[in-house]
Amino acid sequence: MNARRVSYVAAGTLTVEDVKTAPPPAGHVRIDVAYTGICGTDLHVYHGAMDARVDPPGVIGHEMSGRVAQTGPGVTGWQPGDHVTVMPLAACGQCPACRAGHSHICHRLVFIGIDADGSLQSSWTVPADTLVRLPDDLRLDHAALVEPTAVAVHDVRRAALEPGEKALVVGGGPIGLLIAVVARRSGADVLLVEPDPYRRSVAESLGLTALPPGTDDFTDALARWSDGAGAAVAFEVSGAAAGVTTAVDSLATRGRLVQVAIHPQPREISLHRFFWRELTLIGARLYERGDFETAVALIAGGDIPAETLISRIEPLDRVVRAFEALESGDGVMKVLIDCRSAEAGGAR
Amino acid sequence: MNARRVSYVAAGTLTVEDVKTAPPPAGHVRIDVAYTGICGTDLHVYHGAMDARVDPPGVIGHEMSGRVAQTGPGVTGWQPGDHVTVMPLAACGQCPACRAGHSHICHRLVFIGIDADGSLQSSWTVPADTLVRLPDDLRLDHAALVEPTAVAVHDVRRAALEPGEKALVVGGGPIGLLIAVVARRSGADVLLVEPDPYRRSVAESLGLTALPPGTDDFTDALARWSDGAGAAVAFEVSGAAAGVTTAVDSLATRGRLVQVAIHPQPREISLHRFFWRELTLIGARLYERGDFETAVALIAGGDIPAETLISRIEPLDRVVRAFEALESGDGVMKVLIDCRSAEAGGAR
Repeated sequence: MNARRVSYVAAGTLTVEDVKTAPPPAGHVRIDVAYTGICGTDLHVYHGAMDARVDPPGVIGHEMSGRVAQTGPGVTGWQPGDHVTVMPLAACGQCPACRAGHSHICHRLVFIGIDADGSLQSSWTVPADTLVRLPDDLRLDHAALVEPTAVAVHDVRRAALEPGEKALVVGGGPIGLLIAVVARRSGADVLLVEPDPYRRSVAESLGLTALPPGTDDFTDALARWSDGAGAAVAFEVSGAAAGVTTAVDSLATRGRLVQVAIHPQPREISLHRFFWRELTLIGARLYERGDFETAVALIAGGDIPAETLISRIEPLDRVVRAFEALESGDGVMKVLIDCRSAEAGGAR
Repeated sequence: MNARRVSYVAAGTLTVEDVKTAPPPAGHVRIDVAYTGICGTDLHVYHGAMDARVDPPGVIGHEMSGRVAQTGPGVTGWQPGDHVTVMPLAACGQCPACRAGHSHICHRLVFIGIDADGSLQSSWTVPADTLVRLPDDLRLDHAALVEPTAVAVHDVRRAALEPGEKALVVGGGPIGLLIAVVARRSGADVLLVEPDPYRRSVAESLGLTALPPGTDDFTDALARWSDGAGAAVAFEVSGAAAGVTTAVDSLATRGRLVQVAIHPQPREISLHRFFWRELTLIGARLYERGDFETAVALIAGGDIPAETLISRIEPLDRVVRAFEALESGDGVMKVLIDCRSAEAGGAR
C-alpha cells in the first residue's frame, strides 16, 4: 500500500513523495493520519533552525488526529478504526527527571515530529503508549487542536490559577489564545496583550479583552482591571524580549510569571523586581498525559473555539503554500494539513 | 539625659555625636540599644549608594538588641527592662500588597534604619508594634543576629524545603551561612559555593561542605552529591552575575531558585533553561513576624552559631573602623557595634 508524506530535506525545502507503508513493529501502531496542524516549531525546522535535532530527510508535524489502521504484535486495547491523537513524547525512563516523575521533561526526551518522524504523512507508525483516545463523535479537524490545547492546559496548571484571579496573557497567537480560553474557563479574569490587530480581533471575537502593549490604553486598562495591584499571573507567550518586560512589569506583589514561549537568547531580567515584589517565575514545557486527556475533554465539550482558531485547511500536496501562509501571519491563526488527501476528502 | 549616636552625613562620612533623649510619643517605645550589627545595606548607605532614601543626617542600623527604657502613652504589654529586638518595618496598611496580606513588602514600606532613623545610637525610639520579645537569658550580642536570621528563615520558607532535599547556597557571607544553617536544620542536605577561602573556612568550621565556584571540583561534587540530578533548591545570595548563572546551571529538573541577593542591574537569564527544565525562580525579601519569632527561637535554642558568626565587637565611637574592617572583608564575618559604650561595658 502506498502513503504520501512530506519530508524536510534542507532549510526551506520540503518534498512530497509516495512511500510504501510497512506493518507496525511490536508495540507500535500504524495510524491513518487525518489532520496535522502546523506550529511555530515546524516553521523553525523549515527554516533550518533545528538541523541539530532533525535528521533529513525527516517528517515533521506533531499536532494531529487520525484513526488506528493496524496494530503491531503485543499491542492490546486498540482496534483499527479507533479515533486517536498522539502525545508525541518518548522518555528514557532512567534519567533524574524520569526518576523524579517528570518524564515529560526527560533529559533524553525524544520529541516525535522533531527527533523522530512526525505526522505530516498519510500513514504514521508510533509506539502504542503514545496514543490518546478520542471520542468517536469528535470532529477530527477539531481534534488536531488537542496537542496545542494540552500545552495551554499544562501552562494554566503550572500557574495554579485560582478562581477570580487576574491573568494577563502576553501574546495572542494560537497558544496565547488557547491559554486565555483555558484560564478563563478555570475562573480567571483574563486580559490579553498583543501588538497585531488581526490577532486582537480574533481574541475579541472570543469575548476576550485584547490591547496593544506599550500604550497608555494598556497601562490604564491594567490598572483599572486590577484595581491598581497588577496581575496575579502573567503568561509570557510572545517569545520577545519586550514581552518578558511587559509580563514582569504587569505583575502584582507575589505575582507568578509562567514562561511558555521559547527564548533562544538569554534575556535581561530585573531580578530586583523579583526580589522587591517577591515574584515567581515558573517554567512550563509541553504537557503530561493528564493535560492531554483534559484537552480532549475540553475540545469534545465545546470549550475550545476550534472553528475560530482553524483559519484554513490545505491538502498535503500544498504544504509549502500552507507554510508560506502561516509565515505571512496575515489573517491566519492555525493552519491544518489534510493528510488524507490521497483518499480525496472524507468526513471531517 | 544624653545619648550617643552615629549619623550618616554624606558619602563616606559618619559622625558620632551626643544628643538629648526625648520621651517617646504615644504608641512608641524608647529602647536602650545594646548591640547593632552592620550589614551590606549599611555599607551601601555609607558609600552614598542609597542617598535617594536616606535623609542626612540620618541614623542607620537595623540589626539590633536592647532593653525597653521608657514606654509612651497608650503602650501596653511592655515594661522598662524587657529585652527586645525590633522588626524594622512600617507598612501603610492600604496598598495592594498590604490588602493582600503581604505587608512586609508594602508598596510604601518604611524600612526603619534606611527610610527612618535606625539603631546605631544608644537610645532609639520606635513604634511599639515593631518590638519582638527576647528571652531574658538570651545574650544580647547573640540577639543582634535575630534580624539576619529572620531573613534566612524567610528565604528557607519561600523555598518550601522538604527534608532530604539538596539545597545549594551560592555565596557564603553572613546571610548565606545563616541560610545554610537554617536549611540544614530544616532537614535539607546543604552544599555551599563561595570563592573566598576565609568564608569557606568559616562554613567548614560549621560542618558545611564549601567549594569554590567554576571549578571541576565543584562540578564533580555537585554531580556526586545530587546523583547527577542537580540541586532541588539553589539560594542566590552572592549578588553577582556569575552567582546567578551558577545557581541556574546547578538546578535539577523542576528545581527552585530563591533570589535573595539584591541585583541593581538587570541580569541575563537563560529563560530557555527555565522552560526546558521547568525551573522556578522565587523572589524573597525581608521577613514576616513569624520569621522573626522563629529566628528568636533558633538563636535562643542554640541552633545558630552566633559565636562563630560574630567576628568582633567595636564600641560606638569606633564605628568607622568597624565599617572599614567589614569592607576589607579579610577574616571578618559579622561586626557588631556595642551601642552601650557610654555606659562602659555591661554584661553581654
